[in-house]
Amino acid sequence: MTVKVDLNISLDGFASTADQTAENPMGADWDRLVAAYLATRTMRERVLGDTSGAGTTGIDEKYAAQYFVGTGAEIMGAGMFGLHLHGDDPHWRGWWGEDPPFRIPVLVLTRTPRPSIEFANGTVFHFVKASPQDALARASEIAGEADVRVGGGVSVARQFLAAGLVDRLHLAVAPIVLGRGESIWEGLRGLENGYEVSSEVAESGVTHVTFQRS
Amino acid sequence: MTVKVDLNISLDGFASTADQTAENPMGADWDRLVAAYLATRTMRERVLGDTSGAGTTGIDEKYAAQYFVGTGAEIMGAGMFGLHLHGDDPHWRGWWGEDPPFRIPVLVLTRTPRPSIEFANGTVFHFVKASPQDALARASEIAGEADVRVGGGVSVARQFLAAGLVDRLHLAVAPIVLGRGESIWEGLRGLENGYEVSSEVAESGVTHVTFQRS
Repeated sequence: MTVKVDLNISLDGFASTADQTAENPMGADWDRLVAAYLATRTMRERVLGDTSGAGTTGIDEKYAAQYFVGTGAEIMGAGMFGLHLHGDDPHWRGWWGEDPPFRIPVLVLTRTPRPSIEFANGTVFHFVKASPQDALARASEIAGEADVRVGGGVSVARQFLAAGLVDRLHLAVAPIVLGRGESIWEGLRGLENGYEVSSEVAESGVTHVTFQRS
Repeated sequence: MTVKVDLNISLDGFASTADQTAENPMGADWDRLVAAYLATRTMRERVLGDTSGAGTTGIDEKYAAQYFVGTGAEIMGAGMFGLHLHGDDPHWRGWWGEDPPFRIPVLVLTRTPRPSIEFANGTVFHFVKASPQDALARASEIAGEADVRVGGGVSVARQFLAAGLVDRLHLAVAPIVLGRGESIWEGLRGLENGYEVSSEVAESGVTHVTFQRS
């Protein structure tokens, strides 16, 4: 079982969701951060519902395709599910409409759990109040032999990284300077110790940086 | 005439010279930051005085060789010359011994100018109190048709970048997380505007990121 993290960040280490609004829930910077990723064939199908086969098929696509392979359970923070904005709405079902791209059980970490939500495509959101270690134990049980992804947001990923719980960290670094948001690097001096670090530049200009437990 | 900046930074954007001491003047993190660069044939010769031809000859070397080509004058901050530590010593001649790697005129920006220092290999340090714009005008006059390098440190480079004075920024990004030091990115949100940004991964694992004025 591998615990993996995949994030889109800027050159300066930010995954910014500043300026979140109901119309633009991920904030003004988000589109630019994930543009190359969303242009891939896999992400077009899984996130945008485009089944035409359109989309890029280069190095970004290689990572996008890996994103969904072999993952048996996902962990995410309350903010990523939208509870910071929509926590008062008991009917909130996440940002993703009726076909969320996960298609597996997702543990949403929150101080105020609510009933699970199940979708026809296999996505089930469970809301749990747990430490990173305990959440990971539960996710591993669900995933069985398969991998567990810590999906985000950045501060949740950083907690799991700081606790030494992550086997593979993949960062898609967009060639832009955001200057604001949550930094993936904060408090992680020496993170490279115990990992092999490798990088690969995609046709889009995005650099894929991978920390693989050695 | 091109104004260029070349810096070695960590994944998290730092060029740290924390823990500077007389014995280890660049600080504890510096060696790890520049290890791949110092291993190149060009840097071994120019910085370490190794004329045996030893050193790496891959992608890092390509950038190292470019470093010295076509540069007619250099600008650096007082800290890079060592005045923060040695400013009280009127006989201080810099970190580099009697064969400084520059071999061209170097303008050292300082609030307290001192007499110029000339070396047999062509390096001349001039100490000037000037704004980035004025220092650049003086350096351009010296350089003539050749390029001007803003050598560092990071805060000086950032000033020139923020003022829109830099035509080419080259960053050698080492695959380490320093977590401390001066960040090259601070205050430079949107720096990519007006530049073409490209990246290339060296055999060493260093990623070379270039902002070229478009």
